[in-house]
Amino acid sequence: MSEMERLYLDDLHVGQRFTSGTYLMEETRIKEFAAEFDPQPFHLDEAAADASVFQGLAASGWHTAAASMRLLVTGGLPFANGLVGLGGEIAWPRPTRPGDILRVESEIVGITASRSKPDRGIVTVRGTTLNQHGEAVYVLTAKLLVPRRKPCPSRPEPLS
Amino acid sequence: MSEMERLYLDDLHVGQRFTSGTYLMEETRIKEFAAEFDPQPFHLDEAAADASVFQGLAASGWHTAAASMRLLVTGGLPFANGLVGLGGEIAWPRPTRPGDILRVESEIVGITASRSKPDRGIVTVRGTTLNQHGEAVYVLTAKLLVPRRKPCPSRPEPLS
Repeated sequence: MSEMERLYLDDLHVGQRFTSGTYLMEETRIKEFAAEFDPQPFHLDEAAADASVFQGLAASGWHTAAASMRLLVTGGLPFANGLVGLGGEIAWPRPTRPGDILRVESEIVGITASRSKPDRGIVTVRGTTLNQHGEAVYVLTAKLLVPRRKPCPSRPEPLS
Repeated sequence: MSEMERLYLDDLHVGQRFTSGTYLMEETRIKEFAAEFDPQPFHLDEAAADASVFQGLAASGWHTAAASMRLLVTGGLPFANGLVGLGGEIAWPRPTRPGDILRVESEIVGITASRSKPDRGIVTVRGTTLNQHGEAVYVLTAKLLVPRRKPCPSRPEPLS
């Protein structure tokens, strides 16, 4: 995406919505990610997963979170200077399963210009990651640092 | 860790603390993780990172989150049946850098027994991920599903 298409604080308004591309949660990658970062039986082994609270193999919630970030960074949320998050709230209302095809639907829920730094502001975005059945599997409400457009060089007022 | 050493809801109290092992954030892995899940220049390229708000190469916040999960799962938070999170709050007060050695210090900040399901409860844990300088780089306050101990089989009261 070219810099021309990227959005600054000045271009955003509360209620504005964005939709990402899609991401396939592959079983092999689910197990690899879990082995590295979340080695619990219900993310690694079908039989153990069937007997767990998940009732079947489920991706690590952090894998779902990371996949959702990829969707946001690769076009899902085209903010100038990229996506720099300060923090937020997360929820996993439903497990992500092997073969799920995820997308993120985002909505701007707050915009606050910085008082101390006039070149930026904080944008609060609620991103809902949905599976192919339209069910929410992950919700991230994040505070992001977004720059303002640089003001045009000031021109002298015409003499009158 | 054997099942004997794992903690149930009945074993926990507000204010209880836990400390994890350590995790090295390797530069190669920082760049690989970012390329897969958070492909932004300040996570991938030194020169771009120097010119960014991070003022140097920084790990994706989701890599720090995933590494912290590994620390919790591998002994940092020894709960029975593993760590099943429903959601929570996240913050990244400071970037994670290549070569940082992370650990997680956790504290139980809330315990709520389930009204509808007497075999479990929700435990709120604040986990602070610190670098080798003792600086907080990530704070996760999470709601976790924790089982109760199974009650002992009831014995008949002695006749008196």
